[in-house]
Amino acid sequence: MKLCPALKLCPRLLPRLWWTLLVLALAASGSSGQANGEDPLPSWQDGPAKKAILAFVSDVTTIGSPDYVPVEERITTFDNDGTLWTEQPMYTQFVFAVDRVKALAPEHPEWKQTQPFKAVLEGDSQTFLASGERGVLQLIMATHTGMTSDEFALIVKDWIKTAQHPRFHRPYTQCVYQPMLELLSYLRRNAFATYIVSGGGVEFLRPWTQPVYGVPPEWVIGSSVKTKFEIRAGQPVLLRMPEVDFVDDKAGKPVAIDKFIGRRPLAAFGNSDGDQQMLEWTAAGKGPRLMVLIHHTDGDREYAYDRKSMVGTLDHALEEANARGWTVVDMKQDWKAIFPRVQGGP
Amino acid sequence: MKLCPALKLCPRLLPRLWWTLLVLALAASGSSGQANGEDPLPSWQDGPAKKAILAFVSDVTTIGSPDYVPVEERITTFDNDGTLWTEQPMYTQFVFAVDRVKALAPEHPEWKQTQPFKAVLEGDSQTFLASGERGVLQLIMATHTGMTSDEFALIVKDWIKTAQHPRFHRPYTQCVYQPMLELLSYLRRNAFATYIVSGGGVEFLRPWTQPVYGVPPEWVIGSSVKTKFEIRAGQPVLLRMPEVDFVDDKAGKPVAIDKFIGRRPLAAFGNSDGDQQMLEWTAAGKGPRLMVLIHHTDGDREYAYDRKSMVGTLDHALEEANARGWTVVDMKQDWKAIFPRVQGGP
Repeated sequence: MKLCPALKLCPRLLPRLWWTLLVLALAASGSSGQANGEDPLPSWQDGPAKKAILAFVSDVTTIGSPDYVPVEERITTFDNDGTLWTEQPMYTQFVFAVDRVKALAPEHPEWKQTQPFKAVLEGDSQTFLASGERGVLQLIMATHTGMTSDEFALIVKDWIKTAQHPRFHRPYTQCVYQPMLELLSYLRRNAFATYIVSGGGVEFLRPWTQPVYGVPPEWVIGSSVKTKFEIRAGQPVLLRMPEVDFVDDKAGKPVAIDKFIGRRPLAAFGNSDGDQQMLEWTAAGKGPRLMVLIHHTDGDREYAYDRKSMVGTLDHALEEANARGWTVVDMKQDWKAIFPRVQGGP
Repeated sequence: MKLCPALKLCPRLLPRLWWTLLVLALAASGSSGQANGEDPLPSWQDGPAKKAILAFVSDVTTIGSPDYVPVEERITTFDNDGTLWTEQPMYTQFVFAVDRVKALAPEHPEWKQTQPFKAVLEGDSQTFLASGERGVLQLIMATHTGMTSDEFALIVKDWIKTAQHPRFHRPYTQCVYQPMLELLSYLRRNAFATYIVSGGGVEFLRPWTQPVYGVPPEWVIGSSVKTKFEIRAGQPVLLRMPEVDFVDDKAGKPVAIDKFIGRRPLAAFGNSDGDQQMLEWTAAGKGPRLMVLIHHTDGDREYAYDRKSMVGTLDHALEEANARGWTVVDMKQDWKAIFPRVQGGP
């Protein structure tokens, strides 16, 4: 059955008339949004991580529970790279930037002689890495700015449609974690808002998070460049400027959560030291809170890394998780599947 | 009847089971959220402004209409000062800052000799105004920073509970416009998100917009100072720093809308030149858009001002509105009532 489009995302406020009906309906269904004992997290093994998640959701959503939390305060935040999709062998947004350099190279003959572009064009990662943070910034500015916000969104949409992960040979949007898709959906069925709070660029995420994760643009928080309002040929545009606006990583994550949402999360999900402060900020709230770290332990099905990784280093946050009893998801043990089944695939 | 708390704000996603019920219910009710021809805007005269608003809402929410807009794209943005509540004789947040200076003065004996604080303490507005933007900034930094975000929210909550408007002798939260309260509610009943996009401080607004306007914290966008994540006595806090983060006014409004929401508004409401770019950005979207300016024409019931006002100057935006056929609300003509009835009052 095709649902009424008015209900596709969420009826923000329903006509009062129908509330009575709904109250009765919800009361009859219980509040967990689970239909008749169906497993809401079928790709999760019945281990401690799954148990902790189910217990938390039940605690805060069961009417009459001492830990009950009203719908409007049900905020959850998710890191993206390494938490919702693969971040190895390198951040997808970095791959995008490299592809953009290649696409733009004909307009920039000088790049053949200028670092870090020369290294990128020659696939010389040693030299690129030696260019450090400054090199990354130059790469981002050259590929992510100078166009309008609408133009950039189109570039991202086009790229993400066709780009493939080098190991898994499937689109990056299929290198998302099936257990996390189930979790996002389970939380939303229980009226949680599922925000993404990513160190990656907000404008790199928004064009595709709705179809892939069910997360609308206004629930995506990320790093950003400054934009400038201008009238061009009589039309207002937002021009993307070569200047960092905000870095949404580490201590920046709680700052951004407070700035964008203005509420403290009930639950936060991350996988690296970049998420540690977000989890600390969440844990410091009153009442029940759920802090979860995804630990990449499965080199066969995905990647195994933590303390010594270049990308997604998990060191201090793991220590704190162990010390404070936060939930650590062991991907190898806890997840029956890593990626969604691809149509026609295995 | 007390409604189930799970439905108080909005069921973000309802259990699939009940969607069928809802589809049938909504289909039966029509999509306008109006119960049986009841006037959704009873404080609005039946003039061109009300007609334009009703026609717009009907156009974009009627299933089958060529201009139908899905629920998730129904974004509206509202300026606050002068659009949702009185901004005369001066911005309420400025009154708050002045009251804070008085409250903090005993801890700052040096203020008796230092401008702009001396002028504020002596009620010498001439001298204060002469201190210009720098003076305002000093006042804001001295009164709005140096504490944690939680502490500041408490200060605002305490102040707004008791502070009274000097002319209307009622709390500022009762100096909100009754016709706009009806409009906000009418839009939300039709599944529009109603964002506030204010030049005022986001942290000055969030503590009270939910009970007063029905606007939750995550729908409030405003000017901000930088905050810093810190661990204090083992507890993480966000410290408010004496540094401007963002000025959400004029060309800053479309920038903030894009940054925070990532979608273009379908409708935007303002009252001054500070809202002009927000309305231009809205107007430039495809399909039907509604741009509304509140024109303060009622010196008897509220205030009459536009081009020559110090606060809430309406000049270029009014010209553009007239030239482009945007909706201009004439408060004297279009509004039957200005403020909500106070309990026990007239």
